[in-house]
Amino acid sequence: MKVVDLLIEARWIVPVDPAGVVLENHAVVVDNGRILAVLPQDEAASRFSAKSHKRLEQHVLIPGLVNLHTHAAMSLLRGLADDLPLKEWLQHHIWPAEAEHVSEQFVYDGTLLACAEMLRGGITCFNDMYFFPGAAADAALASGMRAAIGLITVDFPSSYATDADDYLAKGLAIRDQRLEQPLLSFCLAPHAPYTVSDAGFAKVLTLAEQIELPIHLHLHETGQEIEESVQRFGVRPIERIRRLGLLSPALIAVHGVHLEAHEIDLLAQHGCSLAHCPSSNLKLASGIAPISELVAKGINIGLGTDGAASNNRLDLFQEMRLAALLAKQQSGRADALNAHQVLHMATLAGARALGLEAQIGSITPGKAADLCAVALDDLVLAPCYEPVSHLTYAVGREHVSAVWVAGRIRVEDGQLIESNETGLIKLALLWQNKIRP
Amino acid sequence: MKVVDLLIEARWIVPVDPAGVVLENHAVVVDNGRILAVLPQDEAASRFSAKSHKRLEQHVLIPGLVNLHTHAAMSLLRGLADDLPLKEWLQHHIWPAEAEHVSEQFVYDGTLLACAEMLRGGITCFNDMYFFPGAAADAALASGMRAAIGLITVDFPSSYATDADDYLAKGLAIRDQRLEQPLLSFCLAPHAPYTVSDAGFAKVLTLAEQIELPIHLHLHETGQEIEESVQRFGVRPIERIRRLGLLSPALIAVHGVHLEAHEIDLLAQHGCSLAHCPSSNLKLASGIAPISELVAKGINIGLGTDGAASNNRLDLFQEMRLAALLAKQQSGRADALNAHQVLHMATLAGARALGLEAQIGSITPGKAADLCAVALDDLVLAPCYEPVSHLTYAVGREHVSAVWVAGRIRVEDGQLIESNETGLIKLALLWQNKIRP
Repeated sequence: MKVVDLLIEARWIVPVDPAGVVLENHAVVVDNGRILAVLPQDEAASRFSAKSHKRLEQHVLIPGLVNLHTHAAMSLLRGLADDLPLKEWLQHHIWPAEAEHVSEQFVYDGTLLACAEMLRGGITCFNDMYFFPGAAADAALASGMRAAIGLITVDFPSSYATDADDYLAKGLAIRDQRLEQPLLSFCLAPHAPYTVSDAGFAKVLTLAEQIELPIHLHLHETGQEIEESVQRFGVRPIERIRRLGLLSPALIAVHGVHLEAHEIDLLAQHGCSLAHCPSSNLKLASGIAPISELVAKGINIGLGTDGAASNNRLDLFQEMRLAALLAKQQSGRADALNAHQVLHMATLAGARALGLEAQIGSITPGKAADLCAVALDDLVLAPCYEPVSHLTYAVGREHVSAVWVAGRIRVEDGQLIESNETGLIKLALLWQNKIRP
Repeated sequence: MKVVDLLIEARWIVPVDPAGVVLENHAVVVDNGRILAVLPQDEAASRFSAKSHKRLEQHVLIPGLVNLHTHAAMSLLRGLADDLPLKEWLQHHIWPAEAEHVSEQFVYDGTLLACAEMLRGGITCFNDMYFFPGAAADAALASGMRAAIGLITVDFPSSYATDADDYLAKGLAIRDQRLEQPLLSFCLAPHAPYTVSDAGFAKVLTLAEQIELPIHLHLHETGQEIEESVQRFGVRPIERIRRLGLLSPALIAVHGVHLEAHEIDLLAQHGCSLAHCPSSNLKLASGIAPISELVAKGINIGLGTDGAASNNRLDLFQEMRLAALLAKQQSGRADALNAHQVLHMATLAGARALGLEAQIGSITPGKAADLCAVALDDLVLAPCYEPVSHLTYAVGREHVSAVWVAGRIRVEDGQLIESNETGLIKLALLWQNKIRP
């Protein structure tokens, strides 16, 4: 009998890889933060003796969800100004609030709040893009959460950095100070084609190749952004960044709402990933990404919540449901984007986009034990003919009962471990009173 | 001091009528199942002595939600067969399961399960259409829930009735036996233009006028239904039912996904109501109802979940969020269909469609005390700049903390009163094992 740290027995386990599989009455064996084995429960009992044991009746165990695009700290601006035209929302509400309030402390506190929300909703890893990424990284670590920290660059000054070079230098320093943190990875995060110059992109590209980082970039979110690019550069943004050499498997293109057929081909040919953010795209009236076409071309698509200012939930169950529903409507086919495909997007595809598919995204021996247990013993989920269908169409994040990151339990019985929920609410209220006195 | 049954003090109260109002630190006084007054808390304390007292800190109190279209008993088929082409789903899964299993007991048990789900999610009234409507009515009464029971008529035989006349006769008998039930009202429910003949519609119309009942009818859900009508009757369904005289303020047209401009005008001119079911319309790839255009013409629009086989949640918070998001995308305007408008749809508009606007749908003295309290003291809802925005974009049904129907508490601390949740889950499992052995 091998002694291991943790044995989790679940009614159903959906490993995501191999695709479409639902294991019944299996166990996951965890040791040293990693998945050691996935096997039938009786076999597990005969081979392993676990220091800790979790039995999950009527639960489905899935890989921890990967939120492929967010601005975590913007949780402090959740619901600040909704139902406004995009320009008024940005220019009269979000940007002024950011200009006045964004600081190291704002980002730390806001990310702490966001991490609590995400963990409780089964998200174990998020891909962040915001000012003061060092504060976001530290908040993720304090929360025991995995994060891909975007080293943001833009051409305009902010309270965080003065110019393109300063952004890059600060970002690299932040990374250097945290290189040994196993829960952290990093992306270069040039904000968008309309906020980064050709020279800025060139520097990002050089660095991305030197230190092998993914590039996290807003791309083709709105029609206006495309029109402006045509006026300013003579080409659509995607063609501009193609010429600059940014299309590659390292690219995580966020949104991709407005894509012509040849642009989808370009993304496919270069092996780019896409972060699909359906709630945010609808809420800002940006459009709907052509997911069925992107899927048909084999493009790697993950799901993102975007920031809480434009969602207003950091809830990947919501995005899974919405992604599936919208793909059906868009394609006119009720069988488009099935529940297994959507779960793949929310887990392994996100991991792959971040270059982390060898480490997370599926319940596979050797990978980190980033796991999410969902309780299906609620009457709003009864009957249960097919647990994966329920995950997409019926489950809410409130059904997440337990979450582990690298084998450490972060959520138990639906409650955060080592996190003071009341304290976080008070912290949010302090910021609320500052932001709107 | 007047002695009353119940005093509810809430941090915020959104009465819905008048529109756009958020009262702070007010109280609702309830006596004999009705709302007696809505007034500031200190004034309430000085004027009323309550037998029961509920203090809701950090809660928002809203009218109970009205689910304007469902097939409640289909909760037993939740998730039976998802991600399939519409025809295959209906012909090989839903219809065979219905043919084999639908009975008085199926409808009673399925409606009981649905009522529990709806009440826990803040829904106090539902507009139902299914076989054995007497069993649905009895399940609603057993759950202490308000229901508008559809007296279904179709041209084909079922285990419930043999032909059009039998459906009508059975429906009227069911109504006659329950006329004295204050929580029940009734609609005539000719299923759809493709399942009801001209003669069947004529009988329904005569009756609807004689006994003044609303008419609950699927209309323009799919493109195929319209094509078939053109082939069979030479006109689109809406024109056919116009000629038959069914367009009137009594009509609740369900779905209205495919509507030409002149058809929207027709609905407006005749004062018809529409039941918007966004989740179901997306999931079955039917389309998206042109809500902004319908709103612009002043049409009364309520929200429906449809049945759990095509949703798979009976969750109006989900439908509110989706309705708002889709309207923005569809119109290209982030300010389309704001949170107050959506809440109006989910409450007063639904009540008006059912002819119940004098009795429910807003927190107004004289109306029944159908109320829903939502707890906003969760970190996923922090900060809270605007409670009504949160209701639409951030709240989940899990935040419903208390629900009253006609002044009787049905949900307290998020738990059903007088309902055996474990028993209901077991009941659903029994049916699951019968339906898919």
